[in-house]
Amino acid sequence: MPSTTVRLDAPLDMHLHLRDGEMLNNIAKESAQTFSGAVVMPNLVPPVSSKAEIVAYRERIMKAIGEESFIPYMTLFFKPEYDRVFLESLREDLTSIKLYPAGITTNSEGGVSGFDVEELRPTLEAMSDLNIPLCIHGETNGFVMDREAQFVPIYEKLATAFPKLKIIMEHITTKESVEALERFDNLYATITLHHLLITLDDVAGGMLQPHLFCKPIAKRPEDREALLNIALKAHPKVMFGSDSAPHPKHAKEACGCAAGVFTAPIALQVLTELFETHNSLDNLQAFISGNARQVYGITPLKKQVILEKKPFTVPADYKGVVPMYAGERLAYSIREVKHG
Amino acid sequence: MPSTTVRLDAPLDMHLHLRDGEMLNNIAKESAQTFSGAVVMPNLVPPVSSKAEIVAYRERIMKAIGEESFIPYMTLFFKPEYDRVFLESLREDLTSIKLYPAGITTNSEGGVSGFDVEELRPTLEAMSDLNIPLCIHGETNGFVMDREAQFVPIYEKLATAFPKLKIIMEHITTKESVEALERFDNLYATITLHHLLITLDDVAGGMLQPHLFCKPIAKRPEDREALLNIALKAHPKVMFGSDSAPHPKHAKEACGCAAGVFTAPIALQVLTELFETHNSLDNLQAFISGNARQVYGITPLKKQVILEKKPFTVPADYKGVVPMYAGERLAYSIREVKHG
Repeated sequence: MPSTTVRLDAPLDMHLHLRDGEMLNNIAKESAQTFSGAVVMPNLVPPVSSKAEIVAYRERIMKAIGEESFIPYMTLFFKPEYDRVFLESLREDLTSIKLYPAGITTNSEGGVSGFDVEELRPTLEAMSDLNIPLCIHGETNGFVMDREAQFVPIYEKLATAFPKLKIIMEHITTKESVEALERFDNLYATITLHHLLITLDDVAGGMLQPHLFCKPIAKRPEDREALLNIALKAHPKVMFGSDSAPHPKHAKEACGCAAGVFTAPIALQVLTELFETHNSLDNLQAFISGNARQVYGITPLKKQVILEKKPFTVPADYKGVVPMYAGERLAYSIREVKHG
Repeated sequence: MPSTTVRLDAPLDMHLHLRDGEMLNNIAKESAQTFSGAVVMPNLVPPVSSKAEIVAYRERIMKAIGEESFIPYMTLFFKPEYDRVFLESLREDLTSIKLYPAGITTNSEGGVSGFDVEELRPTLEAMSDLNIPLCIHGETNGFVMDREAQFVPIYEKLATAFPKLKIIMEHITTKESVEALERFDNLYATITLHHLLITLDDVAGGMLQPHLFCKPIAKRPEDREALLNIALKAHPKVMFGSDSAPHPKHAKEACGCAAGVFTAPIALQVLTELFETHNSLDNLQAFISGNARQVYGITPLKKQVILEKKPFTVPADYKGVVPMYAGERLAYSIREVKHG
């Protein structure tokens, strides 16, 4: 009897951290092997904020992935001083622009610290006219469990002021964000793998679990339910974005560990199991690729990933980076990746 | 000009973990040097649950503290099978009985897993008649931020069913517990140092801070405010209980770190600074000793601790146990401890 197989066409990871240097070289292939493309975050040190930096970073990524067929959809680190001429000059080099509130996560010190519409208007109107989506890490500097919900009014203010600008609420974690999505035509969202699976209980309810510590922090059970609900039905404004964020093992397990969960190598397997468990396998293609094509208007490289229901034991680490579910057994494994 | 000094008479720590073996020998003096006595938690492996175990543990503690003058107020690990005859037989050996819901914290696997009043009645009525206070770690197995608030109805059920039983809500962390305190004459509470100072933001709002990870987990700003409010005014039903809980450095900084904050050696210094900052120094004596004498009806050993406003740099560790504020400078230091 043949085992159950699931075919995914051109999986896309719409929010990915590939880092740079040795880490880039160590982990980029983990995404490139199974994903057709990914939106690559610009929070390097210094952040990617010029044409030259985008082009050079793209080249380093292509070199790191080697023979793999994979499109890195490049992003620019948002700065309010970007003007129309500048943006026009690199329209072909980028897919979106990522806005970080200042100091909110890893390497975001140079981000935006006020959200004054008039101050942002020249840049955001130019982006709107040029159809460049704005990706936002939507958290305030408030209490850790409230930061995202407190940011929703800022999403709404921007969505109202720039009604033709596509605004992607990145890695949403709360029911408040899910609700905001419905209220504004131009709000979209990415959802990570881990926020579909864990709550704060998994991070700090038993022993402290640094490998599940991330920003935004995992929230309450009702928040996870709200996320799961729109992901499983592949709400057309919702896209998969892993926010996979590699840190060396020693940095995650040290006192004062860095935020980020590394899910790139296991995301497709776990999503397949999750959607199957909830009788939603028919919607996985839209969540993992179709919605993103529509929202971003992109045509990814052809790539078919065949998963089969055969246990896969997750490695303890990938070149020193500990993945989610390290050492555990997943129900699905990747049988084959077909190109073209 | 003489520096500011503060005198504390017979400081009491009404909730302390001294552990056993090498750890006991390493850290017991840190409490015994400055506190006149402490209520010592019974969650050893196996838990302290017989007359022989209480007596033997007390002897090990006395040996560990050496020459220091210090009363370990002994506790028994609550079991619903304790009967009146048993409790009468060790009334003189214990100060209170500590109830843990099963599996809720370090070494609590043998705790109570239902709170059926009739099942608990024989033991709790005997305790009530013998005037043995019941100390409770009040958390359910629910979502980590809700566990304590969810336990409040159980406190209320027990307080109603056993109106003459003194019930101590241990290490409260929420405004819900503070409110419950006011509704029932026979509910009392201990509050730790760290829950007066930190919220979940300090544990997981920036980098992850394992040395501030504890159970119950630090809660929201409004919870801390409620705790601070009753502590600073030395509400007569509220006592200081550090819940100081030593773990070896490697266990705190490992992946999957244990819960507990080690505050014994710095508690008096930090409390003095905290109460001074809030113009409440006049209430510190009641919070640190007077209220506990009243609630428990105990007469501690005479001991005067003189603190002075002179910077004290907290050691990086005490025999391998990292204290709160390790390496930081506190405003107050202990100048002298007078006995008798």
